[in-house]
Amino acid sequence: MSEEVTIAVDAMGGDDAPGVVLDGVAQALEADGALHVVLCGPAEVVEPFAAAHERCEARATTEVVGMGEHPAEAVRKKKDSSVVVGCRLVKEGAAQGFFSAGSTGACLAAGTLVMGRIKGVSRPALATVIPSPVRPVVMCDIGANADCKPAYLVQFAQMATIYAERIVGIENPRAALLNIGEEEAKGSQFAQEAYALLKEQLPNFAGNAEGGDILPAKFDVIVTDGFTGNVCLKTIEGTSKTLFKTLKGVMMKTPVTKLGALAIKGGLKELMAQVSPDTYGGAPLLGVKGALLVGHGSSNAFAVKNGVLTTAGVVRAGVSEIIAQTVAKGA
Amino acid sequence: MSEEVTIAVDAMGGDDAPGVVLDGVAQALEADGALHVVLCGPAEVVEPFAAAHERCEARATTEVVGMGEHPAEAVRKKKDSSVVVGCRLVKEGAAQGFFSAGSTGACLAAGTLVMGRIKGVSRPALATVIPSPVRPVVMCDIGANADCKPAYLVQFAQMATIYAERIVGIENPRAALLNIGEEEAKGSQFAQEAYALLKEQLPNFAGNAEGGDILPAKFDVIVTDGFTGNVCLKTIEGTSKTLFKTLKGVMMKTPVTKLGALAIKGGLKELMAQVSPDTYGGAPLLGVKGALLVGHGSSNAFAVKNGVLTTAGVVRAGVSEIIAQTVAKGA
Repeated sequence: MSEEVTIAVDAMGGDDAPGVVLDGVAQALEADGALHVVLCGPAEVVEPFAAAHERCEARATTEVVGMGEHPAEAVRKKKDSSVVVGCRLVKEGAAQGFFSAGSTGACLAAGTLVMGRIKGVSRPALATVIPSPVRPVVMCDIGANADCKPAYLVQFAQMATIYAERIVGIENPRAALLNIGEEEAKGSQFAQEAYALLKEQLPNFAGNAEGGDILPAKFDVIVTDGFTGNVCLKTIEGTSKTLFKTLKGVMMKTPVTKLGALAIKGGLKELMAQVSPDTYGGAPLLGVKGALLVGHGSSNAFAVKNGVLTTAGVVRAGVSEIIAQTVAKGA
Repeated sequence: MSEEVTIAVDAMGGDDAPGVVLDGVAQALEADGALHVVLCGPAEVVEPFAAAHERCEARATTEVVGMGEHPAEAVRKKKDSSVVVGCRLVKEGAAQGFFSAGSTGACLAAGTLVMGRIKGVSRPALATVIPSPVRPVVMCDIGANADCKPAYLVQFAQMATIYAERIVGIENPRAALLNIGEEEAKGSQFAQEAYALLKEQLPNFAGNAEGGDILPAKFDVIVTDGFTGNVCLKTIEGTSKTLFKTLKGVMMKTPVTKLGALAIKGGLKELMAQVSPDTYGGAPLLGVKGALLVGHGSSNAFAVKNGVLTTAGVVRAGVSEIIAQTVAKGA
């Protein structure tokens, strides 16, 4: 039997909250008998749900951080918002992890300010599993740090490697630096400095990855600054979405193509699931004390379920503890 | 009838040179009766071809710039290489444009060092037409300048806007800054400074574009530094390629799916052509005196044909002259 774990969940996070969040939490509780959830949100939302579900506790909150608010300011001011309360529950030990599909900025700010950085970590970083049809690839940073120093990337790579091994199940992950050429001397000054540091300090460093190497999964871990990582991740999502949409147009064109589409529908659905971010349910903020997963704003119940279960998995695998040991050793 | 134009072509550029280059040049000469080509390369390659084709002149060269060489050094040393000779023909007025599917680095170096910058242009930049199935999008810079100052991006946007209007045929193109959020205050320090300058100086500035906005063609021109642009372009190419490859696997799985595939084959081919970089045949280096187009290393004869014809189009549209006027006016 799995270890008992308590995860705080933001009932108000995401475009379709609280509906899909509640459905997702219910599914996660059903799937994992050792999972406990503290549901954070308005009393009228969280209390009836908690009363109706085993292993679920309500934590009523009175404030909401809007998508348009300045994240750090909102986190400082709105101490009784679900995102701040969720992180505080982790800080105080009432939960071991927090999941939210709300504003990424607010989650990053709350994670860093409320849960706190692991000693020795320069900058917590947001990682994600790139949903490749070939095999999963972990990318870090995908947006927590728009401005980076080259040295940060060594820690990003260390943390993402741990996540790739312990959570995604990749053995001996090979980590690469996102760059604009294969050779060592290629790229911006930043990339060249990062290359030198990674080569010196990261045992599993495998060289430069180009943009075209990501989805074919030429490497297991891709490390980059949060600006490039975010652009890259959203480019992959936008490209997949546009191609599938256009493909749908091709298939719906005539009665004959419709018939043809019917024949490949099953396989196509499988492929679309493989490249859907919902499968992994969220992006972990690595380097904070405790587990924090940020879900896609467009998360459906399936994504929320997977996000909550993955957050529990991050706790059980001791990702934060391993990061603390690795980074302390590296420092 | 079209204006007579002479384009120098690098016979040795690309993975499948000189075969596909010669085929592509022959197709371009056939398609455009006012096109003259000066074919640069080893005598045994270029002389028999020129003898067998009207409006084609041979220019024998004795050196070759290899893919592994340091571009600027190679350009300085190998003065009788096809890429240097091609650019020199433009400089001396014997040709008005140069096309090569060879090493991008060598083309950029030769373009800048031999053809020379247009007065007032801080940095020539490489643009490309992103092959979107929705409609074409011009992105600039895609790799000429890995390290940029925010001010460069204003000129990149001006030059790419001219290319979008005159060559791609987009009316009143809307230009956006590639960034990691829609709002003005989002992004790295670099992006925020670039935003302020673009807002102040670019009449057709339309705000921030995210990675997910590129392929859906939410904007006509996307401006960014050469590092991010190159990563982004290659990410789009790698994502499309991987998805089509996986889709092929789905379609070839069983006799039923194969039958289904047959029904949508025509539409799918059309879609693949829409997202193929071959359709536009090359990336223009904007800001140099004369027309210079760099083809994909994997160019086939169709791509070379389109690349040569587009180079002629850049000359006929007077893109360099318009850039000179616009930048001088802006300075």
